[in-house]
Amino acid sequence: METWIFVLFVIGILPGLCPSILSAPQESRNNYLERRKAFLAAETKQIVGAGIALNDKEKKLNEILISAKEKEVNSGFSTTFAPTMNFLVGRYLVEQSAVFNIIKQMPKGGILHIHEISIADPKWVISNITYLPHLFYCVRTDFFSSLHFKFSENPPGTPPSDCRTDWTLVAQSRAEIGAEVFDALLYTNFTMSTPHPDEVYPNTTMSWLRFQGALTALTDLYFNTVSFKAMVKQGLERLVQDNVQYIEIRTIMNGLQELDGKVHPPEYTFQQFKEAIEEFKGEFPNDFSGAKIIFTSIRVPENKTLILEQVKMAMKLLKEYPECFAGYDLVAQEDLGGPLVDYIDQLLYPSQQGVDLPFFFHAGETNWEGTSVDRNLIDAILLNTSRIGHGYAINKHPGVMEAVKTKGIAIELNPISNQVLHLVHDLRNHIGAGLIGDNYPVVVSSDDPAAWGALPLSHDYYMAFMGLAGETTGLTLLKQLAMNTIKYSAMTTDEKAVATKLWQAKWDKFVGDVLKQYGYP
Amino acid sequence: METWIFVLFVIGILPGLCPSILSAPQESRNNYLERRKAFLAAETKQIVGAGIALNDKEKKLNEILISAKEKEVNSGFSTTFAPTMNFLVGRYLVEQSAVFNIIKQMPKGGILHIHEISIADPKWVISNITYLPHLFYCVRTDFFSSLHFKFSENPPGTPPSDCRTDWTLVAQSRAEIGAEVFDALLYTNFTMSTPHPDEVYPNTTMSWLRFQGALTALTDLYFNTVSFKAMVKQGLERLVQDNVQYIEIRTIMNGLQELDGKVHPPEYTFQQFKEAIEEFKGEFPNDFSGAKIIFTSIRVPENKTLILEQVKMAMKLLKEYPECFAGYDLVAQEDLGGPLVDYIDQLLYPSQQGVDLPFFFHAGETNWEGTSVDRNLIDAILLNTSRIGHGYAINKHPGVMEAVKTKGIAIELNPISNQVLHLVHDLRNHIGAGLIGDNYPVVVSSDDPAAWGALPLSHDYYMAFMGLAGETTGLTLLKQLAMNTIKYSAMTTDEKAVATKLWQAKWDKFVGDVLKQYGYP
Repeated sequence: METWIFVLFVIGILPGLCPSILSAPQESRNNYLERRKAFLAAETKQIVGAGIALNDKEKKLNEILISAKEKEVNSGFSTTFAPTMNFLVGRYLVEQSAVFNIIKQMPKGGILHIHEISIADPKWVISNITYLPHLFYCVRTDFFSSLHFKFSENPPGTPPSDCRTDWTLVAQSRAEIGAEVFDALLYTNFTMSTPHPDEVYPNTTMSWLRFQGALTALTDLYFNTVSFKAMVKQGLERLVQDNVQYIEIRTIMNGLQELDGKVHPPEYTFQQFKEAIEEFKGEFPNDFSGAKIIFTSIRVPENKTLILEQVKMAMKLLKEYPECFAGYDLVAQEDLGGPLVDYIDQLLYPSQQGVDLPFFFHAGETNWEGTSVDRNLIDAILLNTSRIGHGYAINKHPGVMEAVKTKGIAIELNPISNQVLHLVHDLRNHIGAGLIGDNYPVVVSSDDPAAWGALPLSHDYYMAFMGLAGETTGLTLLKQLAMNTIKYSAMTTDEKAVATKLWQAKWDKFVGDVLKQYGYP
Repeated sequence: METWIFVLFVIGILPGLCPSILSAPQESRNNYLERRKAFLAAETKQIVGAGIALNDKEKKLNEILISAKEKEVNSGFSTTFAPTMNFLVGRYLVEQSAVFNIIKQMPKGGILHIHEISIADPKWVISNITYLPHLFYCVRTDFFSSLHFKFSENPPGTPPSDCRTDWTLVAQSRAEIGAEVFDALLYTNFTMSTPHPDEVYPNTTMSWLRFQGALTALTDLYFNTVSFKAMVKQGLERLVQDNVQYIEIRTIMNGLQELDGKVHPPEYTFQQFKEAIEEFKGEFPNDFSGAKIIFTSIRVPENKTLILEQVKMAMKLLKEYPECFAGYDLVAQEDLGGPLVDYIDQLLYPSQQGVDLPFFFHAGETNWEGTSVDRNLIDAILLNTSRIGHGYAINKHPGVMEAVKTKGIAIELNPISNQVLHLVHDLRNHIGAGLIGDNYPVVVSSDDPAAWGALPLSHDYYMAFMGLAGETTGLTLLKQLAMNTIKYSAMTTDEKAVATKLWQAKWDKFVGDVLKQYGYP
């Protein structure tokens, strides 16, 4: 290579990422290695978090972290690597990890993609909520014999049509079967727990069937005046224990049912959320920055009237409670139908009324390319979504890829959810790896951690760090992921400043704490 | 949206792929649907093959194909979808497919990534080559009890150090055990065939262990004067039967061994290849455009002297036989070491001598991001490779992504190989899906089809069509994939013109034939 071309190239005047466009006849070894170094450096600069300059303490922590990561990668190479195993059976490997032990302690910022009923610990739900009096259950007709529950002062009468037994008192069955066995059965029912997930749920359809069975039971236990606030608060306590400082809760906001059968309107549910959150914030002012609600309709085809009503309610809540209400989304297994474009009149309604209702659409949680589900990604973009939930199909949509990068629309990655629900087996194939490698706006979240026995955020951060990023990518990625949860949250600029301050103090303490654990003063 | 902006947008003056950058307050349903249509159209234009204008007959065939594809996707959705199953057990599903039946008949152009010993049908090898006289075998010490073979007039003496038995005559064991059982055992040994691949080969390491065991046996049977030309020719016959018109054969070019133990130099092997290819071309002038050889060294660390010798031999062959010799590559499991950068002096040697030796590097056949293996992709680019073999890690390298697109460096996708060798489970997660969706230069190939009982190219084309492309992507993709094998081949411009003519005649016949089968005149 001519020296002057080489100089131009090294100082970066020629197009940054593509030095190889210069052919290099009769090149020396040293020239080649310089060119290689520059290419590697340019690529490294593209990784999420690469812009962060670590301070001295952080650099030391980074060394510890990278060294632990390398050990786990090497051991994974010769034995089994946790991100390649279904989390339902691979979790034990994570629990033994030094990297995981650090990540657990790390202040992770916020959870921006999680569903209300999957926040509380199912073990806590069993030993507390299902021990409350007046709780009935019936066994459903689905393949996995999922359960329905109902709190009721009096015998609740006819069971729902999808049950094949009568209502029975939980206390009575527990006494008959024995608490230990009964509670173990409940755990199997409230979660997807099984020693052979790939055989029991061999595809997306089967895993969603069991998943929704688990969610239905928890939904019954959640939306009633007996347990609601306790479940919300236990969820928030779990967050704080997992070093999470903020949350945006997606909720279907069912009406809360009283013991006498009376059902409150959804607005009451919102008020109860608001109260629980405020009370909790009051109890943990140094650990918790707050929570916002994302109202989610269920994407049932031909549900348009209800969806318009719910969109209107979202507009009303946004207007009245902007500090506590973030926006709107649609949920349920995308693959089964009800694509966004089916509700286009309802979803255009706010903007037609001059109201800027933020959308946080689930989109592209699928592997079925070219289908209506897959195209939810396009509608999410065209409807000006604030973030995209999952976006798993995004790599098949160059237009969407470009739009999210240009407009800074964060993709809410939920690696463990996508694995357990059969979108991807080996997490190193997760689309998040490409997004992280090319500085796309991403946040890491957990979707429904209770359903697979994960912590609110630590397990997913571990998978993102180990499975979705390279061996040499360290603390800058984790720090940026935490900062992104604030940056891409629905918080106002002022709220973000306050949240950042709270997080930063915890971050500095975390860095010092881990250094101490590793023997540094 | 202002009308004039909308008009500008529709006629494509505003940046093509990102219409959504225009926010659209108070938009009507119709405006939205127009905007959506334009976005979809812009994305569709990005798919490999989208530039092809189909003629009337092709349009009809496309309808048939899309309709068959939709049926298989729908049935896959509710039951099992072949691209999501390990090919070693899912093959039966493909054989029943109407789409596959069309693809089998389609002239597929060339195979640009295949290894010499994996072209002939292992069943043919068993019933022909292993029935030749003077063939000995011994059982190796590896976990899977793979085999070594040797043609030898006299008892061949001491077995190799990796064998745990003495040399035994194949004919003798076959007589003792019974031909049916013995030949079935051979098939298990020559291929990765097993009813439970995910249990038997639970990770990359185990699958490569068995894979290399199978390859070693076939290598012994291939590189000797007794069987060589017959095996080469059977491989070429299989190609033609599978409607493949051209091939670039990667070969380690071992010396051919005579029955008396004498071993010819590698140049002799090349001459024998050349003869076999020319003879075959003479026999099938209307079906076969020819073959070229890519010489591949084995990437064994500390093998630098040998590699330099082999690079020099490649330069010599290129100079002497440019019509039959294509270039150079390095092979073997990348994950185990010997990255390109280790051989930088040897690989810079040709250009330093002013010789343009084309490289066809295997690179990034890995999920281990950030490792030396993963960085082979970068060295392949910096060394000005003509194509990239596998490139599975490419989506984690934005710089490499940009370079291959800008420079037109084709990625040789081998979907079934990557699945069987445990890089990816569900082929819809294969990186090729993103590449095909964004018009990257790609060809589809088969790597080692014999090892997993696949046809030379049809099964991989089926997987690319069904698993790596959307439900609405039809004949244009298949046609472009075939044309790409000529475009990105090592043929000269004149050779390409001849090959295109031969292929085009077959293509027109294929279109007519399938239309007839579906009842169109």
